[in-house]
Amino acid sequence: MSTSERLRDLRAAMQQHGVDAVVVPSADPHLSEYLPDRWKTRRWLSGFSGSTGTLVVTADFAGVWTDSRYFEQAEQELSGSGIRLMRLGAAQSPEHLDWLCERLVRGQTVAVPGDVLSVAMHDVMRPRLSARGIALRTDLDLVDDVWTDRPPLPAASVREHDPGYVSSTRSERLARVRAAMAAAGATHHLVSSLDDVAWITNLRGSDVPYNPVFLAHLLIGPDNAILFVPAGKIPSDLGRRLGADGIVLADYAAAKTALATLGAGDAVLLDPRRVVHSLAAAIAEEVTLVPQLNPSQRFKAIKTPAELRHIGDAMREDGVALVRFLIWLETTLGSRVLTELDIAAELKRQREARPGFVGESFATIAGYMANGALPHYHATDGHYATLAAEGLLLVDSGGQYEGGTTDVTRTIALGALTGEQRRDYTLVLKGMIALSRARFPRGTTGQQLDALARAPIWAEGINYGHGTGHGVGYFLNVHEGPHAIRPPVPGETGEALAPGMVTSNEPGIYRPGRHGVRLENLIATVPAGDGEFGEFLAFDTLTLCPIDVRPIEIELLSARERDWLDWYHAKVEAELAPLLDADEQRWLSARCAALGGATP
Amino acid sequence: MSTSERLRDLRAAMQQHGVDAVVVPSADPHLSEYLPDRWKTRRWLSGFSGSTGTLVVTADFAGVWTDSRYFEQAEQELSGSGIRLMRLGAAQSPEHLDWLCERLVRGQTVAVPGDVLSVAMHDVMRPRLSARGIALRTDLDLVDDVWTDRPPLPAASVREHDPGYVSSTRSERLARVRAAMAAAGATHHLVSSLDDVAWITNLRGSDVPYNPVFLAHLLIGPDNAILFVPAGKIPSDLGRRLGADGIVLADYAAAKTALATLGAGDAVLLDPRRVVHSLAAAIAEEVTLVPQLNPSQRFKAIKTPAELRHIGDAMREDGVALVRFLIWLETTLGSRVLTELDIAAELKRQREARPGFVGESFATIAGYMANGALPHYHATDGHYATLAAEGLLLVDSGGQYEGGTTDVTRTIALGALTGEQRRDYTLVLKGMIALSRARFPRGTTGQQLDALARAPIWAEGINYGHGTGHGVGYFLNVHEGPHAIRPPVPGETGEALAPGMVTSNEPGIYRPGRHGVRLENLIATVPAGDGEFGEFLAFDTLTLCPIDVRPIEIELLSARERDWLDWYHAKVEAELAPLLDADEQRWLSARCAALGGATP
Repeated sequence: MSTSERLRDLRAAMQQHGVDAVVVPSADPHLSEYLPDRWKTRRWLSGFSGSTGTLVVTADFAGVWTDSRYFEQAEQELSGSGIRLMRLGAAQSPEHLDWLCERLVRGQTVAVPGDVLSVAMHDVMRPRLSARGIALRTDLDLVDDVWTDRPPLPAASVREHDPGYVSSTRSERLARVRAAMAAAGATHHLVSSLDDVAWITNLRGSDVPYNPVFLAHLLIGPDNAILFVPAGKIPSDLGRRLGADGIVLADYAAAKTALATLGAGDAVLLDPRRVVHSLAAAIAEEVTLVPQLNPSQRFKAIKTPAELRHIGDAMREDGVALVRFLIWLETTLGSRVLTELDIAAELKRQREARPGFVGESFATIAGYMANGALPHYHATDGHYATLAAEGLLLVDSGGQYEGGTTDVTRTIALGALTGEQRRDYTLVLKGMIALSRARFPRGTTGQQLDALARAPIWAEGINYGHGTGHGVGYFLNVHEGPHAIRPPVPGETGEALAPGMVTSNEPGIYRPGRHGVRLENLIATVPAGDGEFGEFLAFDTLTLCPIDVRPIEIELLSARERDWLDWYHAKVEAELAPLLDADEQRWLSARCAALGGATP
Repeated sequence: MSTSERLRDLRAAMQQHGVDAVVVPSADPHLSEYLPDRWKTRRWLSGFSGSTGTLVVTADFAGVWTDSRYFEQAEQELSGSGIRLMRLGAAQSPEHLDWLCERLVRGQTVAVPGDVLSVAMHDVMRPRLSARGIALRTDLDLVDDVWTDRPPLPAASVREHDPGYVSSTRSERLARVRAAMAAAGATHHLVSSLDDVAWITNLRGSDVPYNPVFLAHLLIGPDNAILFVPAGKIPSDLGRRLGADGIVLADYAAAKTALATLGAGDAVLLDPRRVVHSLAAAIAEEVTLVPQLNPSQRFKAIKTPAELRHIGDAMREDGVALVRFLIWLETTLGSRVLTELDIAAELKRQREARPGFVGESFATIAGYMANGALPHYHATDGHYATLAAEGLLLVDSGGQYEGGTTDVTRTIALGALTGEQRRDYTLVLKGMIALSRARFPRGTTGQQLDALARAPIWAEGINYGHGTGHGVGYFLNVHEGPHAIRPPVPGETGEALAPGMVTSNEPGIYRPGRHGVRLENLIATVPAGDGEFGEFLAFDTLTLCPIDVRPIEIELLSARERDWLDWYHAKVEAELAPLLDADEQRWLSARCAALGGATP
């Protein structure tokens, strides 16, 4: 069935129901980043496979709104489909809503399924459409009508997070959440976001690739909590243990019914950006809504000292895998044909050999030359590049370990480089070092620090279209808030960085059609003194993997930047060498040599 | 009459009216920074003379909430009054409202005069108080009842801004504002902010010190505009010219009545932070409110090329005054006793000799040693320091010229310095240079750039409690938005910097009881290339005055920082020398020598 046949069927359903426009967000009932196949609706309809993008279909128009990370990819994937790429000026801006307001006329109807529409987006859409006399229907899922072989709910089993890596019991976590609920004046708390559900319950699953989560809603009341989870996913002994901890099980589809039983005197804390409209709409009018960030978002963002120790172990294991991968790359590149697919496969093979490894934390991005200019590129069986002994290979990969989640990017010189490639690489390195070395007062947000990484890149008239850093979970999602290091998003108040928060540090430069450079370490916020001017914080770099010094234009680095790189490489060598054999140690030692020795 | 007698009388009035708490903001009916004496209510009651601060009085409590700029000053001025200093964590945060919500009980009443309460603050206060069963009355001005010798409205005459310095007529400006009103769907626009009124009408006044504005509200309708201004302030020939341009005059007190005549079908654009509640409350329910930043805020923030040329001329005149002041300081310091008052007087004397000079743009801050640690310190006849031939003198001053507004801070070594003084001075200089050298993509806000100036200061565990830069008017207010270079304020969306915007660049370090360092130049945002990654902007430094190199710890400056300072001094010398006599040129040449020569 082709894209145009699918659009034709959808338009027929629209006509039948008197719907003039359908909005297909990239979303599931948990507003997750990674969608179960059942909710890859926008991809099924349009062919565009990027992680974010909103499809709008009318009788005579179809377009996907997505942000600059995906411009290149969307252009390729939408090519020939008749679906237009609508370039978003700012990520997550609802520009498709402006478009709808402009193009539709009074009396027309827009449909968005209420089970994939956040409360926050609903509350933006309805008044704006209504002011123009346009109706919004959230009770229709027209794609469901035409998607006849739509996949079922995932059926994978749920398990305990290995207790050896868990720093508090689920009873303790529930008590902490209930204390926050009480402080906010809430009797109940609806948790739909899967990272929050997994963290509160100390459970893990495999319903989607890469994120060790499982599909469930959690309704926390004053005395018990109900976990709404598809039948058969919780083994019976686990169900008994959950029951002992005050968590009862109910069917996944029963959440609406349970919410409908709440009445006057009840107050439900829910995050309008993390709960879908159809669930919130099931709550009776007389119930008070307490719209707030899920308290567990802030709790789990701050890693405990024990968690940071486990993350350190995971970083060492990941570092061993990365070093063995880099050695393999060097020794294999000259002897046989290698493609981007081989890069991803070898990285996976090396990580799978590490103790505690559970799976990849996202699909490896191995982009050679022009493919490296697509920040979220993924080689496929039908589309990949073959490596040659020149230019730059960008490799962004990560692992899920019982004791932590990793995410690391290295850009590697495969041979001769152009001056532009060397300058771009050095500028990105300068940006990464500037953020690594930052010291700042407690209370500072990542929105304030983002420019520190960009300044050396901006100085040359260059910029990158993604944030500098995202929060990272603990054997959980590789993208977790509430903190981030990125330009301010209108309407969002930045979250202050606090000791224990883990964030990525990943500036980049992308030259479409030529090459891409990105370097990424994970960094932990740590205390850095408390004196006359108050408490200061800084970053500790967690990732342990040599940074390729061959592409560096050494004269562009300041003495302090060279010192930082030497310090980092000394640390990498000291931490990883004990886990490597003699040949590997020699290789590592050469790759971690102080820059004095590396300068031509 | 003592502070305690005034508080006693106020409390008697409170009891008589059944009011449990009175809030006295630092505000007038235009929400101005500089208040006419008539509205210096908080100062009259409490004795605290800082430019911002909110006084709350209950039967058994009186406290002033102010921000860290004023902690030292407020402590001194409130000492012995029984009024508590309430330290604000974040400037402009309504923490006094939290306090009221916490301390008052259901059934009690808070009074704030509606003619000094912004619509925005009213809209925050009323629901929060109401949720706790606390009444808010805005129809009582109890301080007016007890302030028997309250000053009258200012009576100074209004005049045209010299047409030789004006880049567009008031008819053109009104047309531009009306176009913005039409785009926002507004039929009317209420302008209460005095800088906007002055800019739109091309008029200037002298109702408050330092800001060349006059008290008036302006109501712009589709066909005409009404200027509500106290009788007798507009000379009759000027009144005729205004009439010819479609601006009719009405009494200052008639604004409410005129607003009350609007009806269904009318829509009033007003800025909730720049209009007081009592005016907005005069507008009938059926009138649509269009809450938006005054369009003229953005128009006047972007200086035209002609305005920038006039500002350049004003900077040269100001630079001559500053150089002559610095020479006077050096030659006089050893020969007679000098106080901080002499510094301010000599600066004023030098500026008054310059062509185009109208008056000072704010009260000169001349703070020697510990007084320099008070960012908004002002010496008074009763409280000033005598200068000695050692340590640091901080001088922050500025002028109003027909062709621009200046604002400059230099910290000057009067003799031997401690290592701490030298390090602090050099760190502040590094911060100022980092911002001066910044290049950034169009769309970047000052909130994103603020950390660039702080990073070298933060690196040593030091911070400063004020923004790095404020917007500056054109022969208008020395503090004008909407842009600024400062940490993000929750709820405010930062304004992107655009070519033509003028901002200050003024990092500082303050060591209470010891010394203060601040360096300040005005900078203009200018285009800096348009290439593969879009349009870039940078800053052009406008202020022309040597930066004292004697306190610099030269080894703390990078080569690029030294280059910037040499470039700046070469520019200062080239621009100012032609306006100076031979002796002055020799002095300037020595002060502007490249650092190589200045290094010990």
